[in-house]
Amino acid sequence: MRLTSKYFPVLNWARDYDSEKFGDDFLAAVIVMVMLIPQSLAYALIAGLPPEMGLYASVGPLIAYSIFGTSRTLSVGPVAVVSLMTAAALSKVTQPESADYITAAIALAFLSGLFLLMLGVFKLGFLANFLSHPVVNGFITASALIIALTQLPQLLGLSVSGHNLLALLPQLRYSFTLDRDQLNLATILIGFATIGYLIWARLWMKAMLQKFGLSERLSNILARISPIFAVVLSSVVAFYLDLGSADVLLVGQVPVGMPGLTIPRFSLELWLGLITSAVFISTIGFVESISVAQGLAAKNRERVDPSQELIALGTANLSASVTGGFPVAGGFSRSVVNFDAGAATPAAGFFAALLIAMATYLFMPALAYLPKATLAATIVVAVWSLIDFSIVKEAWKYSKADFLCVITTISLTLLVGVEIGVASGVLLSVLMQLVKTSKPHIAVVGRVSGTEHFRNINRHQVLTSPGIMSLRIDESLYFSNSRYLEDFVYQALAGNKELKHVVLMCNAVNEIDMSAVESLLAINENLRDAGIQFHLSEIKGPVMDKLEKTQLLEKLSGNIYMSQHQAIEDLA
Amino acid sequence: MRLTSKYFPVLNWARDYDSEKFGDDFLAAVIVMVMLIPQSLAYALIAGLPPEMGLYASVGPLIAYSIFGTSRTLSVGPVAVVSLMTAAALSKVTQPESADYITAAIALAFLSGLFLLMLGVFKLGFLANFLSHPVVNGFITASALIIALTQLPQLLGLSVSGHNLLALLPQLRYSFTLDRDQLNLATILIGFATIGYLIWARLWMKAMLQKFGLSERLSNILARISPIFAVVLSSVVAFYLDLGSADVLLVGQVPVGMPGLTIPRFSLELWLGLITSAVFISTIGFVESISVAQGLAAKNRERVDPSQELIALGTANLSASVTGGFPVAGGFSRSVVNFDAGAATPAAGFFAALLIAMATYLFMPALAYLPKATLAATIVVAVWSLIDFSIVKEAWKYSKADFLCVITTISLTLLVGVEIGVASGVLLSVLMQLVKTSKPHIAVVGRVSGTEHFRNINRHQVLTSPGIMSLRIDESLYFSNSRYLEDFVYQALAGNKELKHVVLMCNAVNEIDMSAVESLLAINENLRDAGIQFHLSEIKGPVMDKLEKTQLLEKLSGNIYMSQHQAIEDLA
Repeated sequence: MRLTSKYFPVLNWARDYDSEKFGDDFLAAVIVMVMLIPQSLAYALIAGLPPEMGLYASVGPLIAYSIFGTSRTLSVGPVAVVSLMTAAALSKVTQPESADYITAAIALAFLSGLFLLMLGVFKLGFLANFLSHPVVNGFITASALIIALTQLPQLLGLSVSGHNLLALLPQLRYSFTLDRDQLNLATILIGFATIGYLIWARLWMKAMLQKFGLSERLSNILARISPIFAVVLSSVVAFYLDLGSADVLLVGQVPVGMPGLTIPRFSLELWLGLITSAVFISTIGFVESISVAQGLAAKNRERVDPSQELIALGTANLSASVTGGFPVAGGFSRSVVNFDAGAATPAAGFFAALLIAMATYLFMPALAYLPKATLAATIVVAVWSLIDFSIVKEAWKYSKADFLCVITTISLTLLVGVEIGVASGVLLSVLMQLVKTSKPHIAVVGRVSGTEHFRNINRHQVLTSPGIMSLRIDESLYFSNSRYLEDFVYQALAGNKELKHVVLMCNAVNEIDMSAVESLLAINENLRDAGIQFHLSEIKGPVMDKLEKTQLLEKLSGNIYMSQHQAIEDLA
Repeated sequence: MRLTSKYFPVLNWARDYDSEKFGDDFLAAVIVMVMLIPQSLAYALIAGLPPEMGLYASVGPLIAYSIFGTSRTLSVGPVAVVSLMTAAALSKVTQPESADYITAAIALAFLSGLFLLMLGVFKLGFLANFLSHPVVNGFITASALIIALTQLPQLLGLSVSGHNLLALLPQLRYSFTLDRDQLNLATILIGFATIGYLIWARLWMKAMLQKFGLSERLSNILARISPIFAVVLSSVVAFYLDLGSADVLLVGQVPVGMPGLTIPRFSLELWLGLITSAVFISTIGFVESISVAQGLAAKNRERVDPSQELIALGTANLSASVTGGFPVAGGFSRSVVNFDAGAATPAAGFFAALLIAMATYLFMPALAYLPKATLAATIVVAVWSLIDFSIVKEAWKYSKADFLCVITTISLTLLVGVEIGVASGVLLSVLMQLVKTSKPHIAVVGRVSGTEHFRNINRHQVLTSPGIMSLRIDESLYFSNSRYLEDFVYQALAGNKELKHVVLMCNAVNEIDMSAVESLLAINENLRDAGIQFHLSEIKGPVMDKLEKTQLLEKLSGNIYMSQHQAIEDLA
């Protein structure tokens, strides 16, 4: 019973669902639906897929998440960065705009879902923690920049392909050297008018609506869903002015309604070509989703369960694959709208899914007149806020290691591609952490007069006894730093003929691994041969428990002391 | 001036070199020479090279090391494990017993030397620390087992190829199913008689010689150089009984004297094929050498400089490549002999090199009669002591993570090959360390009555104040654990409606990286939105210095306290 409600959080909240919650949820669902429609269409374009697939990818995942998700407000569906990664992954195995491309997108959603589900079931979510903050932020900034650049030519009525700067720049250069008669003025007008409107909406719409007497909450929500007005208006204009005949690219006829259930194609070759990408996409998608979900939950003193979130996102992606969609994740802006609109339970997502499914029946014919430039403008404004190079400056100020990670991630993502960018960032941050712990701070310490405190002899006026050397290491002892400790000890004793005792203070040692035990044994043996006793002090309980399983305590030439003070008292 | 003597340690000791030191060094050199000759010949065979190359590979490196090395007693030259790795590397790019094979061996020594030199000049020696103790020991045990297995058929007069169990086992099986008339009885007799003699020498020779009245030191040295007697005796027997005509495989005619200077062939294709192997070989060689050198130096309260050792080993390998040798490293047994024989300065190595060079002129003709089975027997007995599976049991007892690393290294080295074995071991140990630090110990703490100490509320009887939660984290804050901390905090506050203050005790935090700062900022913001103040206490000095470069201190909703006690006093 408890296990069922753990894996099906829906059972926890559905029991006391009432009409008041229904009211809140339904209102939030309507607002999210209105916001999701233009976003979903646009993000499908980023992925290089037909726009209606964005809607398909919103329905199944929202339903799955409402059953398995632990966040009240996380809203899953197509998101910008994951869509870019999808485009990059698909272009490796197939040609854009082919039927295989769609098949591959569905397979990619399936594999991502499977991978997330596996991580969730085996509780391996902590692996996503290896995506450090500088890497994730650098990656998002670089991806957003690439997305914006792919959309600029679309605003001029051109199309581009490529998922890194080297591929894009020549095409951009071409775009901006066209003669006036090669450009489509109507497209340019629609595109830049939409951008102007969206920027205005983002910066001033809320304040203006409040000035007109609307409540703050309503003004806020209207400002957030502002893209829908651009979609409606530009479609109406395109219809009445017959812009399709004036060579303005429109979305065009799309099938009405939801597709039947799609079954992901099983092809070992296709799967092998996509599996690495699926791992990258689902990890990035998870990191983004969990940050959003945790942040929103904490504001209400609630919590989300990371392992269950993996399961929920996994099933969301599996659902996307059976409803003809592509990889999805929790989106930041739509989740905030859902939160602000007052969603009371995950049912809000369920209702939003039903509304979008209905919309595919009612509004699909209207999409025929939607200019693609409107969607491109929506994308540019949406991703523009993700581009934030301040992380580079902050990292530079904070630490050179973090700076190196962020600059590597950004440049490789821009120049080579999204997957290489993320992978190099992760590898580099892992290497940097290891390098940091490999050179721990070790100090020769002495007693502060009149106290039982011991401090670095190079920084403080302290008392030392001839013949006794006290060392303090400010780090756990691992293979990566144990030889450094050996080297430090041997260096400290070289040439010191009076030395009789070395005491290692272990008060900052939270863990000792097997390599470190061997190093301590080697130090003990070599000191013994040199006529020096080796002592340990202030070992923490759990570390002592582990040392008792080794030969160290029995072979130790010196003693174990509870405190450094006691050690010095005894040896002096 | 000081810089010259740093990079040329020879300048430090050559200045006050005297006849007494010369006497000590020369005696040690004679003993080492006698020990090195059979070892060098045998280890060349492990590498699949003509035995005389073992002697060539001893001369140049010993001279180079005597100029650049910082250890008084480290003796460099061919060593068993590095020779096996050399054989595995060469067989990837060329055929054994071809002229290209020798060219490739020389190129491999050159590349290894270059790589070590680079590590030394850029002070990157700490990278070798990532070879953890379980990985190195597991690797040596597995390699030694493979070496022993390759030699067994040689004892029967057969030859084998292959550098992993899967390749060797079918050949071994074949060896032991031969009919009696396919075997060469004389070879078998020589091989097993040598093995018997060497085992006896190792276990009982020293005691017996002492019983006959020889001094302990002399008995010890004679026991260590016992293989030379087997080499001499079996050559003499082979000569007088004309065993060559009886189908006993002999070393045969080898060129007299040292070869002229060899110039490593520059071929991009060859270099690319060998560079990865050169990295593995030099790293393993360095780890082995530095352990031996540090251990022996510490016994005399001396110290070796790891960066300079890299330079010394680098030039040793470069010298090996110009004197027609193959990759070398510091050997354990010969260095111990050098130490025991009383080598006073690195000049001992220099003299040993001259003696070996002379030996190539004087004794090469005698090698014609040396049975290969004698060398195979020498190898088997020498590597047998390296096979030590107790590391597996120890690791199992000590920690499952270390066990996983050692068992992976051993099995992959045995089944797949030396390079895959080491690489997987390193990757796995790095991953394990990250996994460990990714789930740090975090405790909710309370004050021990009547003291200013704070302890885990689950383990101790402590006082807590309603509305205040104190958390202590026993690990530095890194990207790999910062989200874990976030999750812990949100979980701890979920549903707690009275909570007004969260205080994070940072007394065990030695470092905070940028991701962790972001997590603290996120915690701060989300707690503030939930109406909770976030405080920090007991931050170490260097950590505080770094935090001052961030927005955290200015955005923090609560305070920074010097001590947890002060925090509780103030907030209660």
